[in-house]
Amino acid sequence: MPKESDNAKGSDNAKGAIMPKGATMPANENPFIIENIQPCVDGGRFPVKREVGDVLTVTAAVFRDGHDAVNVLLKYKEKHDGGKWHETDMHCINPGLDVWSGGFRIEKNTRYLYTIAACTDIYRSWLNDATKKAQAGQNIKSELREGLILLENTIARVADEEDAAYLANVAAMLKKEMESSGKKKNPAGIKPSGRKSQDEILKIFSDSLLGDFMVRCAAREDLTEFAPALEVVADRVRARYAAWYELFPRSQGRAPGKSGTFKDCIARLPEIKEMGFDVVYLTPIHPIGITKRKGPNNCLTAGPGDPGSPYAIGNAAGGHKAVEPGLGAIEDFREFERACRAVGMEIAMDFAINCSPDHPYVSKHPDWFFKRPDGTIKYAENPPKKYEDIYPLNFYAPGGAWESLWVEMRDVILFWVNQGVKIFRVDNPHTKPVPFWRWLIEDIQREHPDVIFLAEAFTRPPMMRALAKAGFTQSYTYFTWRNFKGELTEYFTELTQSPAAEYMRGNLFTNTPDILPKMLQEDGRAAFKMRLVLAATLSSVYGIYSGFELCENSAVDGKEEYLNSEKYEFTVWDWDRPGNIKDFIASINKIRRENPALHLYKNLRFYQADDENILFYGKSTEDGKNIVLVAVNLDPFGTHDSLLHIPIDEFGIKPDENYELHNLITGQRSLMTGNQFHVSLNPDIESSFLFRLERWGEKEEKFDYFGM
Amino acid sequence: MPKESDNAKGSDNAKGAIMPKGATMPANENPFIIENIQPCVDGGRFPVKREVGDVLTVTAAVFRDGHDAVNVLLKYKEKHDGGKWHETDMHCINPGLDVWSGGFRIEKNTRYLYTIAACTDIYRSWLNDATKKAQAGQNIKSELREGLILLENTIARVADEEDAAYLANVAAMLKKEMESSGKKKNPAGIKPSGRKSQDEILKIFSDSLLGDFMVRCAAREDLTEFAPALEVVADRVRARYAAWYELFPRSQGRAPGKSGTFKDCIARLPEIKEMGFDVVYLTPIHPIGITKRKGPNNCLTAGPGDPGSPYAIGNAAGGHKAVEPGLGAIEDFREFERACRAVGMEIAMDFAINCSPDHPYVSKHPDWFFKRPDGTIKYAENPPKKYEDIYPLNFYAPGGAWESLWVEMRDVILFWVNQGVKIFRVDNPHTKPVPFWRWLIEDIQREHPDVIFLAEAFTRPPMMRALAKAGFTQSYTYFTWRNFKGELTEYFTELTQSPAAEYMRGNLFTNTPDILPKMLQEDGRAAFKMRLVLAATLSSVYGIYSGFELCENSAVDGKEEYLNSEKYEFTVWDWDRPGNIKDFIASINKIRRENPALHLYKNLRFYQADDENILFYGKSTEDGKNIVLVAVNLDPFGTHDSLLHIPIDEFGIKPDENYELHNLITGQRSLMTGNQFHVSLNPDIESSFLFRLERWGEKEEKFDYFGM
Repeated sequence: MPKESDNAKGSDNAKGAIMPKGATMPANENPFIIENIQPCVDGGRFPVKREVGDVLTVTAAVFRDGHDAVNVLLKYKEKHDGGKWHETDMHCINPGLDVWSGGFRIEKNTRYLYTIAACTDIYRSWLNDATKKAQAGQNIKSELREGLILLENTIARVADEEDAAYLANVAAMLKKEMESSGKKKNPAGIKPSGRKSQDEILKIFSDSLLGDFMVRCAAREDLTEFAPALEVVADRVRARYAAWYELFPRSQGRAPGKSGTFKDCIARLPEIKEMGFDVVYLTPIHPIGITKRKGPNNCLTAGPGDPGSPYAIGNAAGGHKAVEPGLGAIEDFREFERACRAVGMEIAMDFAINCSPDHPYVSKHPDWFFKRPDGTIKYAENPPKKYEDIYPLNFYAPGGAWESLWVEMRDVILFWVNQGVKIFRVDNPHTKPVPFWRWLIEDIQREHPDVIFLAEAFTRPPMMRALAKAGFTQSYTYFTWRNFKGELTEYFTELTQSPAAEYMRGNLFTNTPDILPKMLQEDGRAAFKMRLVLAATLSSVYGIYSGFELCENSAVDGKEEYLNSEKYEFTVWDWDRPGNIKDFIASINKIRRENPALHLYKNLRFYQADDENILFYGKSTEDGKNIVLVAVNLDPFGTHDSLLHIPIDEFGIKPDENYELHNLITGQRSLMTGNQFHVSLNPDIESSFLFRLERWGEKEEKFDYFGM
Repeated sequence: MPKESDNAKGSDNAKGAIMPKGATMPANENPFIIENIQPCVDGGRFPVKREVGDVLTVTAAVFRDGHDAVNVLLKYKEKHDGGKWHETDMHCINPGLDVWSGGFRIEKNTRYLYTIAACTDIYRSWLNDATKKAQAGQNIKSELREGLILLENTIARVADEEDAAYLANVAAMLKKEMESSGKKKNPAGIKPSGRKSQDEILKIFSDSLLGDFMVRCAAREDLTEFAPALEVVADRVRARYAAWYELFPRSQGRAPGKSGTFKDCIARLPEIKEMGFDVVYLTPIHPIGITKRKGPNNCLTAGPGDPGSPYAIGNAAGGHKAVEPGLGAIEDFREFERACRAVGMEIAMDFAINCSPDHPYVSKHPDWFFKRPDGTIKYAENPPKKYEDIYPLNFYAPGGAWESLWVEMRDVILFWVNQGVKIFRVDNPHTKPVPFWRWLIEDIQREHPDVIFLAEAFTRPPMMRALAKAGFTQSYTYFTWRNFKGELTEYFTELTQSPAAEYMRGNLFTNTPDILPKMLQEDGRAAFKMRLVLAATLSSVYGIYSGFELCENSAVDGKEEYLNSEKYEFTVWDWDRPGNIKDFIASINKIRRENPALHLYKNLRFYQADDENILFYGKSTEDGKNIVLVAVNLDPFGTHDSLLHIPIDEFGIKPDENYELHNLITGQRSLMTGNQFHVSLNPDIESSFLFRLERWGEKEEKFDYFGM
């Protein structure tokens, strides 16, 4: 039912006059309900995440009172470009539940805003009703006059002269027909000599070109828009798909008791590249504190040659913007960064907000630290434990000091961004304010949307999710502590299928300098290979900490910690030592590269394997062209057999259709019909079965000449 | 870590100076994350509903960075009283997921706002750390000085002189002890002669009275409050628990072809009361249009004596604020209303926004209607169907006319509220703007919070939910079209257990003037009794349309409509005609009254019955003192037997414990052990088994004298 556009609403005073008390009168321009928008995090309080090249598909329930035809639009714009909104039509995909769907392709690494708007399609509503009446043989003279008024009102609104002329022509012609038809008082539907019947006139109104035009030029007076708009962080693809290799730069040398250098790191790049990694993640490279420096195996006193933990940052040589002289100069770092980039890898840097007592901040910004009543600065504690080699920064520092501290932290990141670093692994972000991260990450990404932040928080689930919502691109996970079928299935279903998957990407590390999982301590190569396959295929982004490829598993007795950890000493490795699994890692990373299904995060699905020790899952691309299935024997100590139930239904394969299973590790191929496949997984040979499901060629009837 | 309260933040200019570009710096006072608040509708966009006497239990995940002790508060206030916030402590019920819970009793029929606030418990954080250090034998001299500073800072904030004096005393005493302890340089924990050790001083700090005091007087500088606050509509209990009886006032007379009157209605009250109903719902009582009046069985032409449909409202005698003269005068209506109230029942009125062509609005407010190009007013249509006896109102009427229309509609409600009507059944609300209802209902309830609105919308689920979110107290449901075990289980699980149950209460009607369900047409008494039990026990609020008690089931052939419907004629009923189920209805309503579990809406749970025709479910009060179980044979044509699996676990009954099943319809009692109970339900005798589970008396060992 059309509303007139040029009629002013009663003024607020007038409203007051009729409504002696009570609620403010709502506007009546917004009759639409737009609800349950997906994706949407916490009612729009936080952005969702996607990657460049994705189509952001948005659905919502959209409806209004009555049964008018409606137009529903998906609107989107870049958040920071100050530009205008784009619009794309949404389509009703479930009329019974009023569900509409639409999407747009994410072309750029930036943040977008998106929302949904709806308005009544006045022209189509009128046309639908008029058509139904005409079809029932009713006289629609009055309806046709309404249609003409709609046309005439539209002409007044059209800016383009040619368009206006086209519409004016149509309107004039229709008017002439209708007037003459009126004069002759002919009964409905009966055609007077030389004049158009009401059905013929309606046919002109029903022209689809005219209809589209009327929609495009509609006044949209009751346009209802969901507000505030929702946000999507469009990261680059590496935010979702990458293999990380973590190393201590100082352990890349050859001389015992002496620091490796960035030059040594450069020498190692071909080997890391050959294993198929994309990201070389460096533990902190800054000058290390001297006061209360930790010795080997975290002992309280360091010997004269002990390098200390790189996490106790800062000494007279500088702090977070400086490089530990033992590694080289900043120019050496730059050279290393360029060398990485030259072979198609990139650096991830450790952002550990820990200051040693010797950090320049201590003397220059004592107000950034916690103080005792006597004015001395507090070291870190987790009472009764003391960490005297670390002075924690106070992110709530009084007197406005927190502001300059926050800005300095942002500037540390910017400094390294300017050295070419675009990935930061953030140490213990959960001990700093969440609003700090939200501000810092958006502030950096406004100018540098390609910067990736990985949150190293192994804390309770709500805080881990809160950091991801606040902006962290990726998150560490509990992967190292998930080893059995039930817990793996549950945890990875949650990580990839729950609402959290809209904003949190789990980066699975098999091990870290702080975590040598029990599973890897217990058994050798079989466990390492099994956990690698899990990490590399359960998530599209994963990492290993160097030594993993050597199956290094010397632990501190009874703990999940490395013995003689690189954290406290110079280590020299034999990177080719016997028993290493470098070739296996290279083959798995190659399989990842060659199979686009493994580049995706949210496409993980678990399938049925009858044996409790065998985990069976798969990933496929949306077009169904790449399907990878994985069966892993989770028990590194024994062989297990199982029937795998291949979800052929899901892949659109009929029970009697042939297909092929291509074992991507061995190269072996099996021809298949039906959904049952038997595996026997002997960890001494291979714990995992990683295969690509390939459709068999076309049948004869698909070809043209079959019917000839 | 305490922040100093008297230090001003850097000004905005200062911020600008350090941050040449980028995001606005967030405030650092709000480090807490408060998320996943339950209950909460659409992220707080709409209120939840509760009833007076309920405890509103609120849970949320609340946390911040670090490991400080925190205080979490549930805050609430009346929305319209302009008064102050109340606070109650929340408690951590799941530390691993940071879930906190708290609640407040709803004392008043009004709207409340509620939210959650959290702040760091600086004193307890300090005390926890100091205690751990002291327990580990560390010197805590500096920590004790910090504690003293906390005390001294608090004194400065305490308004009450006595409190301040108490605190000053404690502080002075502690200071003296600590200074002297300092002078003597005694080693930690060793008590110098006559002076307190650090442990003894800490014990004073640890006094729980002092602790509570410090919490109460805390500066709460980092208080983080969830905003905007959420809302709860606290209705009166009748919004949740009532039995409705719908009637046509004009059919309550005795003389054929003549209108019954309000006096006739008064005469029927004792009978309705005896059946156990709480609400007498009247179809429209206003003057009925004459133009295009409908005749019997909805025929297009009415005879001279035909009364017309009461839903075509308005003639020269008046409109929505007038009474049809055939029923009596407004004074008669008032008398009827008083008579209802006198026997503990109340009236529900039909609010049908339909105008006949003769409604006074047509001449007084032609701008409220839809017009044709020639200026005439449009009748209602659903093309190609025409409803020429109705002129629909245009809730979007241009030129500001909609505003005066909305206000008039509000005033119609107010008019009847002033006549004592506090319940309105709203006809077809889904054809009017949702924002209109949101405004109208809150506007009425601000002054009259006891007014109840029932939405008669049998439309798609999203609109039904939208109307409930917008403020409707109750909603009609699809109950009449849910007849089988699977669909009943699914639908009522959704209605009572899904998020929608927070704001939508289904009022189950067994039948309406427009709906004579197939199930009732097919079979006689058995089906009527079976559907009554379902309606009366699946929901706490239900209704029948009169005639149901007589098992009236004459239908228009092939339709779910009544033959010779009261909607179009004067009907005279024999209210005692043979085959009626008035006694049965009375007994079911009595069972409802006597069992508080049946007064609740969200406590419905389905249990296992092995037979596909037998639906088994139950309701219990939160304290477990009243447990009602219902088994219904859904097949009115045949006897079915089933094992019922009684959920004794849920009720805390051990497998070897005795209990009693008390058949509330027959009075029969069965002693039980274990969870298996066999029923045979013969519809010719009784389709339903409605029993109360009663715990057996105490065992001998519970009594004092057992041990004597």
